[in-house]
Amino acid sequence: MLQKVNIAEKLTLFNEHWSPKITGELNGQHVKLAKLKGEFIWHKHDDEDELFYVLKGCLIMEMRDQTIEIHENEYLIIPRGVEHKPIAKEEVLIMLFEPASTLNTGDQQNEFTKNQLDKI
Amino acid sequence: MLQKVNIAEKLTLFNEHWSPKITGELNGQHVKLAKLKGEFIWHKHDDEDELFYVLKGCLIMEMRDQTIEIHENEYLIIPRGVEHKPIAKEEVLIMLFEPASTLNTGDQQNEFTKNQLDKI
Repeated sequence: MLQKVNIAEKLTLFNEHWSPKITGELNGQHVKLAKLKGEFIWHKHDDEDELFYVLKGCLIMEMRDQTIEIHENEYLIIPRGVEHKPIAKEEVLIMLFEPASTLNTGDQQNEFTKNQLDKI
Repeated sequence: MLQKVNIAEKLTLFNEHWSPKITGELNGQHVKLAKLKGEFIWHKHDDEDELFYVLKGCLIMEMRDQTIEIHENEYLIIPRGVEHKPIAKEEVLIMLFEPASTLNTGDQQNEFTKNQLDKI
């Protein structure tokens, strides 16, 4: 039987920052939830476009030639190949929509890298 | 330059029911907004999984073997091949994630069918 996903409920299931959780899969894409706080690293995804939907808070997306503030109920699509650096001055809750193949740190490997994501 | 999408702003740009508008594209998928009211038709998508995210109101999704009420900030993924019939007793505002190839009435063709969707 199919089951719906309640976003608020899923968000109670984890607290770590910068650790996306998979809540759904369709057409080879994942729907993820994440909690962000602080500064992430500069990176890009060579083969994946990435959608950031802000559920709560304000996400600052730095790119090399522009900076965009994404507020609640706004989204931004970062096309493949575009370097970006997400910054959350206060905690930000987001939904991500991106190919199942997407690595959170893209072309970079460091302490932020999550090779295996939990499904919740 | 990239631009973010403000959902509330986009929703002011149209009023028709059952006429999805494209607000974004990534990885061959479309992000659409739609306003629903009344009963849609039974249909299925042979090759596309479809995500219904409820922004406002309550969407009743009838399937042949179950019915799910999707409330605000909840989503449901209908896998390809699953017959479904959306019902909105009061107006419902939704966001859709689905392949760019998706026809709104799936395997059915009738007065609800939209062969060409507007980008807003």
